[in-house]
Amino acid sequence: MDERWQKSLPVSWKNVRFTGGFWKKRQEINEQVTLPAEYEQCRSSGRVDSVKCIYKPRENSGPEKGVFTIDGVLEENMADGETIPRPHHYWDSDLAKWIEGASYALWYERNPETEAVIDGIIDDFGKLQMPDGYVNTYYTVVEPGKRWTNVHRMHELYCAGHLIEAAAAYYEATGKAKLLDIVERYADHIDRVFGPADHQIHGYPGHQEIELALVKLYRLTGKKKYLELAAYFLNERGKQPYFFEEEARQQGRDPEDGGPKGILGKSFLAQGPYALFQAHLPVREQMTAEGHAVRLAYMGAGMADVASETGDKSLWQACVRLWDNVTSKRMYITGGIGSQDGCERFNFDYQLPNEESYHETCASVAMVMWGFRMLQVAPDRRYGDVMERALYNGVLSGVSLSGDRFFYANHLAAHPEMFRDRIIRNPRMFPERQRWFAVSCCPMNLARLLESLGGYQYTQGKLEDGGQAVYVHLYQEGTADIRVRDKKVVIRQETDYPWQGDILVTVGTDLDGAWTLALRIPEWSGQPVLETEDAEVWEDRGYLYVRKDWSKNGHLHLSLPMQPVLMEAHPGVRMDCGKAAIQYGPLVYCVEEADNDADLFDCILTGDSRLEAGFEESLLGGICTIQAQGIRRNREQWKGRLYQPASRSYFEPVKLKAVPYYTWANRGTGAMTVWMNHIPGMDHGKVDGKYEDKADRGNVN
Amino acid sequence: MDERWQKSLPVSWKNVRFTGGFWKKRQEINEQVTLPAEYEQCRSSGRVDSVKCIYKPRENSGPEKGVFTIDGVLEENMADGETIPRPHHYWDSDLAKWIEGASYALWYERNPETEAVIDGIIDDFGKLQMPDGYVNTYYTVVEPGKRWTNVHRMHELYCAGHLIEAAAAYYEATGKAKLLDIVERYADHIDRVFGPADHQIHGYPGHQEIELALVKLYRLTGKKKYLELAAYFLNERGKQPYFFEEEARQQGRDPEDGGPKGILGKSFLAQGPYALFQAHLPVREQMTAEGHAVRLAYMGAGMADVASETGDKSLWQACVRLWDNVTSKRMYITGGIGSQDGCERFNFDYQLPNEESYHETCASVAMVMWGFRMLQVAPDRRYGDVMERALYNGVLSGVSLSGDRFFYANHLAAHPEMFRDRIIRNPRMFPERQRWFAVSCCPMNLARLLESLGGYQYTQGKLEDGGQAVYVHLYQEGTADIRVRDKKVVIRQETDYPWQGDILVTVGTDLDGAWTLALRIPEWSGQPVLETEDAEVWEDRGYLYVRKDWSKNGHLHLSLPMQPVLMEAHPGVRMDCGKAAIQYGPLVYCVEEADNDADLFDCILTGDSRLEAGFEESLLGGICTIQAQGIRRNREQWKGRLYQPASRSYFEPVKLKAVPYYTWANRGTGAMTVWMNHIPGMDHGKVDGKYEDKADRGNVN
Repeated sequence: MDERWQKSLPVSWKNVRFTGGFWKKRQEINEQVTLPAEYEQCRSSGRVDSVKCIYKPRENSGPEKGVFTIDGVLEENMADGETIPRPHHYWDSDLAKWIEGASYALWYERNPETEAVIDGIIDDFGKLQMPDGYVNTYYTVVEPGKRWTNVHRMHELYCAGHLIEAAAAYYEATGKAKLLDIVERYADHIDRVFGPADHQIHGYPGHQEIELALVKLYRLTGKKKYLELAAYFLNERGKQPYFFEEEARQQGRDPEDGGPKGILGKSFLAQGPYALFQAHLPVREQMTAEGHAVRLAYMGAGMADVASETGDKSLWQACVRLWDNVTSKRMYITGGIGSQDGCERFNFDYQLPNEESYHETCASVAMVMWGFRMLQVAPDRRYGDVMERALYNGVLSGVSLSGDRFFYANHLAAHPEMFRDRIIRNPRMFPERQRWFAVSCCPMNLARLLESLGGYQYTQGKLEDGGQAVYVHLYQEGTADIRVRDKKVVIRQETDYPWQGDILVTVGTDLDGAWTLALRIPEWSGQPVLETEDAEVWEDRGYLYVRKDWSKNGHLHLSLPMQPVLMEAHPGVRMDCGKAAIQYGPLVYCVEEADNDADLFDCILTGDSRLEAGFEESLLGGICTIQAQGIRRNREQWKGRLYQPASRSYFEPVKLKAVPYYTWANRGTGAMTVWMNHIPGMDHGKVDGKYEDKADRGNVN
Repeated sequence: MDERWQKSLPVSWKNVRFTGGFWKKRQEINEQVTLPAEYEQCRSSGRVDSVKCIYKPRENSGPEKGVFTIDGVLEENMADGETIPRPHHYWDSDLAKWIEGASYALWYERNPETEAVIDGIIDDFGKLQMPDGYVNTYYTVVEPGKRWTNVHRMHELYCAGHLIEAAAAYYEATGKAKLLDIVERYADHIDRVFGPADHQIHGYPGHQEIELALVKLYRLTGKKKYLELAAYFLNERGKQPYFFEEEARQQGRDPEDGGPKGILGKSFLAQGPYALFQAHLPVREQMTAEGHAVRLAYMGAGMADVASETGDKSLWQACVRLWDNVTSKRMYITGGIGSQDGCERFNFDYQLPNEESYHETCASVAMVMWGFRMLQVAPDRRYGDVMERALYNGVLSGVSLSGDRFFYANHLAAHPEMFRDRIIRNPRMFPERQRWFAVSCCPMNLARLLESLGGYQYTQGKLEDGGQAVYVHLYQEGTADIRVRDKKVVIRQETDYPWQGDILVTVGTDLDGAWTLALRIPEWSGQPVLETEDAEVWEDRGYLYVRKDWSKNGHLHLSLPMQPVLMEAHPGVRMDCGKAAIQYGPLVYCVEEADNDADLFDCILTGDSRLEAGFEESLLGGICTIQAQGIRRNREQWKGRLYQPASRSYFEPVKLKAVPYYTWANRGTGAMTVWMNHIPGMDHGKVDGKYEDKADRGNVN
């Protein structure tokens, strides 16, 4: 734990515009297709109208309806005999995420129609707000009078967090404070309800989110109580006696009731039922990342935020410890987390199944959010690299290229027969993108992230010597308007990233004197080449610090050598042993049935296979594909046989074509795999244990 | 479908005795430990007393209790407030299988105590038999008056089948006919209830078993109606309108009610709900093996039996078609079937997961039974080889070497953390042998098979030219008393099989004239060497036919060259691509953590690895172990890293020691795998697609 503190703060998404290239295209689709499609789903499913509080519960209206149909189409959330969908306890969060995403879009291009829709929803929230500030649709109409009685499972604080994030976005985008006023009054209410005093609830959310939202609200309003409330939630978490247990007892519920699927029962998780919520131990005593993955990553983001603002070293150390466990033992090569289907949770170390992975889109979004907050405390490429890895792979695979089909789980391998034969039965797990999910967190989360992505590109802070630094964490064609020492600085990036590693940076400013631009050098990069003049340059923790007077000559050219590389996973990841994956820059690749008529799973990449990258303009929206050589067994030898001596196998050469993982499943349903069988190092001589250490060869294939 | 008909019939288990060697030892443990332990479980769980019909249902006694506890110990099958366990609807079959197994043992060594226990249970069955012949504990005390109302799900005919098999065994072992009388009257009752007449039920069992039992009863009694009833059940099966649907409607049940786990619902199986029971199509129209694996294999056994007795070619062809689908596309290398946990069912072609395999012990038992019946119609080693494969691997792994711990599911790979971390939650799926399972079919089935194994060794029949043939399907130290042309023939085998492939056969007889001994030559064998005198020898479908006058010189020496071989699975078995398994004679091997401190899953067998077999007297009861050379990655290179370029990997040599699969999990809990990563054919030159066809090299490694 030798993390030096070197705080920086984000350059707002408002100040960054993508002017072309990779993300500009994705944002356009997000604005033109994804956000409208999501609104339509919210409308038709009853989410939009739910805030009008027209639902009235009937006597004995029965349990909530099952939320999935076999084809993934939403089954209306109506009990038998009801005509108005019953608001679900997390619907407010879906609307909030949509408002947040749509608000970002408004800033880039004002749209009175969208603005009116948002205003309408906000007004409905305003109307349902109680005199004391409380805002929650579910507890207003479905279980009135029961608020704050099941903080453990009912997502009230989670919904509140998303409303706060929505309010911040809407306020920043439009200058209109009406949602901000609502959530401030709500946050004040929460601040009165929760806390250490005798009359307060000594509790914390069942689903973390509000912690990072409260820090956002603190930064926007300057009101320290929001920061303190965030810290309170984190510090209280996991203390004994357990709040969740106390709460259940007070409400006359059986604390050991496992819920319909038993997932809250004592025996479900080895670490006890509260590990699912990261509430089995105080956060500073949690040594491994357990339980629900999104909850953990949101918690990590909140911990980093609070540590950044308060300077709380022990909180930061706990945060680093969780980050290290996740990223060195429990994360997919795509940056995705939460490999376990049951409970959407972390598995034990190195348990990263490919076909059966859960690897929820939301969890990759959460990794981007968490990594971005880590690097604000300590600029280290290990945070930025993971953020980028999750963004380009685990997040982006969650939406189709068309923008209107989604993955909830993102598998690293797929064999369509698995769901045709009904072995995989849950549409969340289907290897076909779905139009919607009744639990719609993932599409919503992805849309708001993509729309605010500019906000993840730059941070600003002071160096140890007091000098000003602007950090560049992501490379993308676009401009940023920044203020350094109260002078305007415009940073322009020209690049074809992620297809090429050349970045031309132009800094336009009248600001006299030297200040520093710190550029993340991704670990995948070959030896970077920096061209600039009159600069002092040093490297620290994977960032290249370039200090100069930018008003004299604002040009900089950074070249990050990008070559396709065969990657391996740690020997503990038993499902990937003997296998390799192709990576090219930040992009993880996969082979799909659509490009390869071969038996994908029987192909073996030979160590001397040269990987060749080439851009294909007309394929999947324009992508670099990677060609590789491999071998596979001839099936003719196998007619009618299921097992035979290995010596009978006859191999034939096969050409493989890999595409970026995020583009998979856009051409019908077919087999796919990220990890391919691989004969290691055959180009380096015979495998006989006399290998020299090749670590010094660097990472070029 | 060029199956020539060449019928033979089993030499009864009574006439075969193991006098030493591999199976003798297993039978002794079966008699001394397994059968007594199983009786004790039957007693303490209430099964034995259930037949006394002392249970009385209470009003609203609630649903049956869940049958598993987390540690695999039986939870008494009692509803709240009840003090006497409620008989389960398949308990009769457990008792019947125990009686069957214990009866075989009685023949080998009479034991008045055991005989008295069996007599007591039989007397109880006698007392509960209704005047019309009906015998079923569950429907006598739990749902009186409801018999034959849910043939689909309630196992009445399955229990009847097992009672018949028990009766046959007990009669043959003791000469006492009292259980045989009971089951004959019961079979007569069933024959009156089921059939084509208007007043009869046009149905068939939800769980097949009675078909093969009725053929057994027919052979014992000579009463053709039992054979005809078996044929009726098979011929009626799967016809439209569906019996299961009609039955449900008649009883006022919703035919689409999926049951508690939904497994009977319309959408659960792609082929419809009745595919689980092989009742989605008439048996002659079933092109693939679908549904519950044990049911299918029992059905196949019944089909072969009926075809054998009736000469029904189309039934036989359907049977061969199902066999071919199973053995060429849906069977583990251990001879196990039913790879899908949910529903204990077949998966689609080549879907044979290793760690998550179901591969139930019962299903391997059923494969032995089915294979043995196939070879009675057509002596072809493809049937005998599979029978032997299932027996030595999938069946035998189901019981510990100590005889008192059992596997229900038999995995082909295990990582203990999978159940420590509660990813695998069902004790049936634990990679630790359990003392018992509430659903105890597997331990029971295994015990009765092992005890009657002598009955699987020889069959007798006529050749096309009318000559007499005795077939030797299994090799094992022991003697068989056979009658050929009404003269006594004693066949004695001396062999150390399966550790060595030398078999000395001595035939003692006064019978003049030539007759044929047909010896199965397993496919794994190298070129066999036969030494005998004055014989006419020919080979047909993997059997070596040796025709001579055995009274002149009864000696024969057969040598089956046995070498450890690396086996591969068909390229369609994607989980085994790039992997190989060690086989030695009929035994499949595995590597266990107990013998190998290496990361088992990261080890790679190199193509030039010489496999060396050696006998270890003191290990696991005395076994041949196989030593192999491999390589594995050095973990030092990976500290703190989860992914890195493959070029950085540093390999070190590793020695691996493999043990027979059936011996695994006898030394505590640890990792295990049958399939190991494998670099193919590196001894044969560089892998560059220019491989010559090596098929002619035979199967020697």
